[in-house]
Amino acid sequence: MSPSPRFCCQCGSAELVRRRPPGDSHERLQCTTCQHVLYDNPRVIAGCLVEHQGCYLLCRRAIEPRLGYWTLPAGFMENGESAEQAALRETWEESGVTARILAPYSIFNATTVNQVYLIFRAELVEISAEAGPETLERRFFAPEELPWAELAYPSIQQILERRVREQALGRHGLYLGTVDGGQLHALG
Amino acid sequence: MSPSPRFCCQCGSAELVRRRPPGDSHERLQCTTCQHVLYDNPRVIAGCLVEHQGCYLLCRRAIEPRLGYWTLPAGFMENGESAEQAALRETWEESGVTARILAPYSIFNATTVNQVYLIFRAELVEISAEAGPETLERRFFAPEELPWAELAYPSIQQILERRVREQALGRHGLYLGTVDGGQLHALG
Repeated sequence: MSPSPRFCCQCGSAELVRRRPPGDSHERLQCTTCQHVLYDNPRVIAGCLVEHQGCYLLCRRAIEPRLGYWTLPAGFMENGESAEQAALRETWEESGVTARILAPYSIFNATTVNQVYLIFRAELVEISAEAGPETLERRFFAPEELPWAELAYPSIQQILERRVREQALGRHGLYLGTVDGGQLHALG
Repeated sequence: MSPSPRFCCQCGSAELVRRRPPGDSHERLQCTTCQHVLYDNPRVIAGCLVEHQGCYLLCRRAIEPRLGYWTLPAGFMENGESAEQAALRETWEESGVTARILAPYSIFNATTVNQVYLIFRAELVEISAEAGPETLERRFFAPEELPWAELAYPSIQQILERRVREQALGRHGLYLGTVDGGQLHALG
């Protein structure tokens, strides 16, 4: 998360107070010099569960946190792109894999860090390049090979568990969840 | 959209430049005094398509833009809440209606204004209060009563068209789309 602002980004004043602006339902950081309201909202992390011949793409993290652990390629959505474009860009940047979106797969909320994850099911188009600098290794895992003990986050484990179960049943679901102290509660 | 920052929110310096920080794949606004990077990312708008006995809840806007036109209750997701909580809160604030989430319904991207809409299907729990100050009127419309000529946005029209078609077929889909010059391209 970004550090809390200490100066107004519009007038440079340090006179910021936390208060509820007129007509607003929430407290905000507001500049008492120029009245500018400094909004702070959750950010979207977009990523892909890329499948190829029944196997799933994972990336082993080259950066903290959870360095050395396996995760889905995902990252912050940027201005000017769609969630699907962000998911495919992050997949390419982190794994060197070009993919195609099939469907949304999971919407989950990490409320303690103000993030919403939008994870899409995707299929491999081609392995285009080496994995990026944030990734030590990329690999497609068959369900029985998945590195359960070395997954970066509980949410990744639950997405994979669900997908493996679905794949065995020939189904495609969509899941809502909230990460809350490391637990993901599926609603769908 | 918020105005572009003119001062560093961490040190108050006006020495901001747009450049690609080391190791970053995107250009950012960065302070050349303290090196703080001022990230700017898309924001999430969460809302509900609330159904009750085959009718759909719409709110007539009391504010610009599109004052007087009908829309789904929706608004900016706030820190500390899930997308579903945000959708239900906005529904309550704008319509006075308490609802229960059934499933995600539409993920659509408004890339030109850096917004992602997460729209959920929901069912009426109770009509709890008057509509809020952003709403002139709230109403549940039967499919044949829907005010097509007075909808606030093309995306609202497409969500309702799709839902009415689905309801007739007894199906529940999920849709991905991108608003691009007023057009929503459904992928699902």
